[in-house]
Parts: sequence; structure tokens; C-alpha cells
Amino acid sequence: MNPAGPLSLNTITVKPWSLPQVIEACARHGIPGISPWRDVLQAMGVDNAARRIRDAGLHVTGLCRGGMFPAADAAGRAAAIEDNRRAIAEAHAIGADCLVMVCGGLPEGSKDLPGARDMVREGLHAILPEARAAGVTIALEPLHPMTCADRSVLSTLGQALDLCDELGEGTGVAVDVYHVWWDPDLERQMARAKGRIAGFHVCDWKVPTTDLVFDRGLPGEGVIDIPAIRAMAEAAGWGGGVEVEILSNRWWAEDPETVVREVTSRHAYC
Amino acid sequence: MNPAGPLSLNTITVKPWSLPQVIEACARHGIPGISPWRDVLQAMGVDNAARRIRDAGLHVTGLCRGGMFPAADAAGRAAAIEDNRRAIAEAHAIGADCLVMVCGGLPEGSKDLPGARDMVREGLHAILPEARAAGVTIALEPLHPMTCADRSVLSTLGQALDLCDELGEGTGVAVDVYHVWWDPDLERQMARAKGRIAGFHVCDWKVPTTDLVFDRGLPGEGVIDIPAIRAMAEAAGWGGGVEVEILSNRWWAEDPETVVREVTSRHAYC
Repeated sequence: MNPAGPLSLNTITVKPWSLPQVIEACARHGIPGISPWRDVLQAMGVDNAARRIRDAGLHVTGLCRGGMFPAADAAGRAAAIEDNRRAIAEAHAIGADCLVMVCGGLPEGSKDLPGARDMVREGLHAILPEARAAGVTIALEPLHPMTCADRSVLSTLGQALDLCDELGEGTGVAVDVYHVWWDPDLERQMARAKGRIAGFHVCDWKVPTTDLVFDRGLPGEGVIDIPAIRAMAEAAGWGGGVEVEILSNRWWAEDPETVVREVTSRHAYC
Repeated sequence: MNPAGPLSLNTITVKPWSLPQVIEACARHGIPGISPWRDVLQAMGVDNAARRIRDAGLHVTGLCRGGMFPAADAAGRAAAIEDNRRAIAEAHAIGADCLVMVCGGLPEGSKDLPGARDMVREGLHAILPEARAAGVTIALEPLHPMTCADRSVLSTLGQALDLCDELGEGTGVAVDVYHVWWDPDLERQMARAKGRIAGFHVCDWKVPTTDLVFDRGLPGEGVIDIPAIRAMAEAAGWGGGVEVEILSNRWWAEDPETVVREVTSRHAYC
């Protein structure tokens, strides 16, 4: 067993592939875990995917993603909540460990950051009963502060844990090293996350980074001390291994088979 | 008087210009403050610049920049400290309100973030006696977390204030709305900064942002609620107005005269 624990392949890492192709690749490369994005899951058909993932014996470490609650008007916010309800059903259908939440940025044209944060809180409160009923853990993922305007007003692990405190049972955090590695308060907050880590994602911060979203590195390509953060997670009770989630124009341009080989060979850097 | 208080022009906002040109532009446009970067200051000659700035009646809101302490070896760290000593002398010579500190990122090839933070602390301790003797306030500027790897391991206002607590007299913080606007702990930390704000810088966060360093917007071009953050600064005792510091490939490509007109007309957005 790799010291980093079992590997899980997030489907966006091999974006050119359909979900059936990712499932086959996991079997072919001995990768025991998978984490699909909803677009490829829906393209395959949720029931079909659930059966094939189960037949392949794959562990579903998460479903990406719910969230995106803030919207400029009430209809938009209601639509987001409805969509999150569907995401909960999908996560339940495929037996995902959690539904990963990318909470959303500022509504179009807004500068009201406290208001957007309130919309996130309200959205989470609205969907929590369904999530609990379905046994789907809501995993709040703090996203790097550089995504605050357009992707996530939830920016730090401390903020995510405050929300978990407020929401209670059925919630946890998804820790992605890319989003939290810079945080001067990380060690303290990771300890505070004890028993509440619902997902652990890895990739790397490249120097230089040339795009705010699509220039992540494979583990070992950048400057994040991934094993140090994994050790914090394990000290907080995490034993679920590492999910490799790489959003990268550079790697998406490669043959996905090459990318999967790189991912498995770089498991040791996690 | 503009409600945002007096305006100061940071020389990098009009990067194509020499310091004499910026000094003339301030007079021409009725801008009472200036904040030079060291490269243009040295190109003009420090004594000559000091005299011309004084003769023009300009208030020097800061000198950019000291810092950049982490280095891969002891010689590199010693050289950084020496360079900071020269920066202190320059800040004193031009009567700057403060020396703005961009503390530095990870040393080349390093993933040791706690180690880099220690190098920053050691560097600051080393230069503080000279700064105090010269009456130059050391203004710690937390930089956006997206610059952690290569520019500043000092990422949050809270972390900067912790350092001020440790360093004591002669230190303060430079608050740039671009670097802190996303922080869920901002309001609390701004209150904690009471009496310790040594500089207040404005620009804006554009959506989308296409470069991690050189794609800042002029006030009003983006999503930062600048007046809300200025109000927090004023509640914490700040009365020094706003320094406009725009690092932007887009605006650097324009005639600087146009940029200065834009800056003055956008004073109202601050």
C-alpha cells in the first residue's frame, strides 16, 4: 500500500474521456477510487453509471459538484437549490462518500460579498434536510481566494468549519491542498477539522501559475508540501487516501492514458 | 475634499513614466500624494528626487518596496537584509510615511513554507533597529494568497498583525484592498489594526482576472466594495486617503496621461 493511502481519480483530470472510459481506465491501472463530475455522470446516465461503477468495484470518493448558490434574483437562487437537490439524488444513486460543494461567487454585477455569503448559507440550510434523508454528506470545499469573485465566496478552511458548526450533522469539509496550502492558519484549522474531513484532494501549485483556474500541476510539479498537509489530515482522523483532481489546459491537451500513468506514478509525491 | 480623502499616485500605475514625469503629472492634475518604487527613485537619484518632491509639495505616502527576505542560502538572506537597509535610508531621505514590505515567497526550489515565514521574521527583526533609528515605519503588506509561492508568504491581515505584535514599535500594516477584500476575517482584523494602518492602497478585482499579478483594475472596474473597506480603515483610525497602485499590462499600454485622468476621475469610487 502506498503511504498516501488509496488513490481516487477525479474525472476532470482526464477531461477528454467519457465516464465509461474513466471507469475502464481505473480498472486497467488498478486505481480503486473514482470521483465523477456531474456532466459526465449525466451523459452516461446515472443508473447505468451507478451499476457500472459498482460492478467495477470502484469506491466513489465524491460527486463534483453542488453549490453555486448566489444569484441575482430569487428565481435564480431557487433554481440553484433545485439543482442541488438533483445533485444529492445523484450522489446517493452512485454511493458517493460526499457531495462536494463549490459554493459560488458574487452574483452578476454585485459587490456585496457578505450578501453572497448569506445566499450560500441559506442555500445550504435549504438542501440539508434532503441530504440528511439521503445519507449524503455535504462536503464544503473552501476554494482559493483567487476564485472568490466568480466561483466561491467560501475561501478558507476556518470559514468552512464555521459553516459546519452552524449546519451540524451531515456536513464536513473537502480539503484540496491547492486551495489551502498558503493559509497561515492551516495547521490549527486542520486540527479543528478532526472527524469532519469528507474528502482530500491533491494537485500542485506551479511557479509560475499562468491561469487562475486551469493551470494546476500534477503532484510533484509544484511547491505544495502535500505529504505535510496529508499528515495533518491523517492526524485529524482522515484515512481515505488521495483524490487527484487536476484542472489543467496543459494536461488536458495530452493523451489521457499518459495523464493516468503520470497520476499513478506520482502517487508517491502525495 | 473627496470623501475618500487625499489621493496619492503610486508610480507603478504609470509605469512608462520616469519619476520626474510622475512628479510633474501630480502637480498638473492636483494630486497631493506620491508613492515611488525604488527603481524609478534610484534612476532619478535619491537626493535629487527628495528635493524635487519636496519642492513640489508632494506628500510621500510610502516607498515601494522592501522585503523579499527568503533566499536559498545565508548569503542571499544577508544580501536581502543589506538591500532593505538601503531601502530604509531611501525612505528616510524622501520623507516617506512608510517603507512598504513585500515580504517574499518561497526560496528557489523550496516547499518549506514555515521555513520561509521564519526567514521573513528574521529579516524583519534584523532591519528593525535601523528603521526605528531612521524613523521609518515598516509597513507589512499582506499580499493575495495567489502570490504566496513567489512574492509573499505573508498572506493575510491577521498574519501581518501577529507579526506587528511580535515586532512592536515602528511597525504597521499596508492594506491593499486587492489583497484583502476576499478575507472572511477582514472586518475583525481591520478593527484589530486600529492605529496601525500605515498605508491604504486601492485598485480593483476584475472578472475575469487573466493574470495573477498584472491584471488589476482601476477603482470601479471590478467587484471590490472599496468604500466599505475604506470605512473599516477609517473606523480603525486611518485618515490618510487612498494610494492608487495599479499593476496592469492593459493600463501600462495606454498613454500615462490618460491613466492619470482615469485615476483622478475614479477617485469617487474609492
